[in-house]
Amino acid sequence: MTRTHFHQELQNLRDKMMGMGGTAERALDLSIRAYWQRDIQLCKMVHQGESIINASERKIDELVLDLLAMQQPMAVDLRLLLAISKCIGDLERIGDQAVNIAQRVEDLITQPQVNLPIDLPQMATLARTMLRRALDAFAIADAAEAEAVLKLDDELDAMNRDAFVAVESSVKDNPQWARSALDILIISRNLERIGDHATNIAEDVIFWVSGADVRHDAAFYERL
Amino acid sequence: MTRTHFHQELQNLRDKMMGMGGTAERALDLSIRAYWQRDIQLCKMVHQGESIINASERKIDELVLDLLAMQQPMAVDLRLLLAISKCIGDLERIGDQAVNIAQRVEDLITQPQVNLPIDLPQMATLARTMLRRALDAFAIADAAEAEAVLKLDDELDAMNRDAFVAVESSVKDNPQWARSALDILIISRNLERIGDHATNIAEDVIFWVSGADVRHDAAFYERL
Repeated sequence: MTRTHFHQELQNLRDKMMGMGGTAERALDLSIRAYWQRDIQLCKMVHQGESIINASERKIDELVLDLLAMQQPMAVDLRLLLAISKCIGDLERIGDQAVNIAQRVEDLITQPQVNLPIDLPQMATLARTMLRRALDAFAIADAAEAEAVLKLDDELDAMNRDAFVAVESSVKDNPQWARSALDILIISRNLERIGDHATNIAEDVIFWVSGADVRHDAAFYERL
Repeated sequence: MTRTHFHQELQNLRDKMMGMGGTAERALDLSIRAYWQRDIQLCKMVHQGESIINASERKIDELVLDLLAMQQPMAVDLRLLLAISKCIGDLERIGDQAVNIAQRVEDLITQPQVNLPIDLPQMATLARTMLRRALDAFAIADAAEAEAVLKLDDELDAMNRDAFVAVESSVKDNPQWARSALDILIISRNLERIGDHATNIAEDVIFWVSGADVRHDAAFYERL
């Protein structure tokens, strides 16, 4: 494999990872639409998406291994390959969290609708923004953009803490709502966890970009 | 670096990972002892342990990178290095979960003691067993032992589902317990999540051992 061919393969790998990121984003979107619309069909679509995400992870892991085995990558490419290997683990777990949300929605639908002062769609929007910006940071090798994702995580954590307080007070006032309130609390934590995974991806970008100092690597930027 | 030296470095890396695993185990133990004894000092020790675990992860990640950069590892060693890189991510997150448990315990201690039919110490024992066996499977490159860990995860998931039902029924009957009951529900989920991370570690062992087929590699076993 020539260096040029190697870098084509590396680009191919990054494209595949971005594709997997898109699938994880759709899983998150579907799960929260399922919540919003109380729609069991959307829950089923989240479950179907999981196997696609898992298959992507295995495929990309094998490609990373092949590239490491066949080439002796330079520091910057080596860090990129390790960052991709970690990132796809987080994307796979975002898919798992979306499945967890879908499972809670399946339970919620069996219960009467409750009215809690918790804006899960807004939390989902923030989690999704974090994921999108972390993936964008990966696409353009931008450590500053990745740093911005870390800051957003504090906001999502605060919303999750507020959700805890709101659920506590709701079940005290309306114990008959307990089951739905607990489902909502768990979805809130699933979203917070998705934010953590987006944070991990952002940290992978920082590990890759700042460690290898690709910001000063003109040849690297030509390949983007 | 000679091949012998390389394999010494690889062994050194595995030892460091096992050390990190031990630190994660202690964090889990401390967090659940903190719950059992309602002891704020033990919570503080969990927080202190987190920075040790995080530092270990960074250190091991750099060692993995150095070994990949300086050598062109064979298939089996390459898979091992990638498996270690993934495994330490899970160990770090087990440390995070222990911190989450300690935070919930800090909240629980401020509330009157409640009596829920949820045996968190038993769940913790199962999560700890999974982690120990996954690490043992790593130490002796045993895919069968790793497979056994995957089975234990079903048991822990079932206990977590039971905890959900118990919390729901408790807050219906005793709404004044809501806050403590929610704390306990979240600790139950933290423990279930630790089981997931142990499962990931077991899967890393399977990826490493079965992919590289080290079971039939006599030279590999001599190095263990």
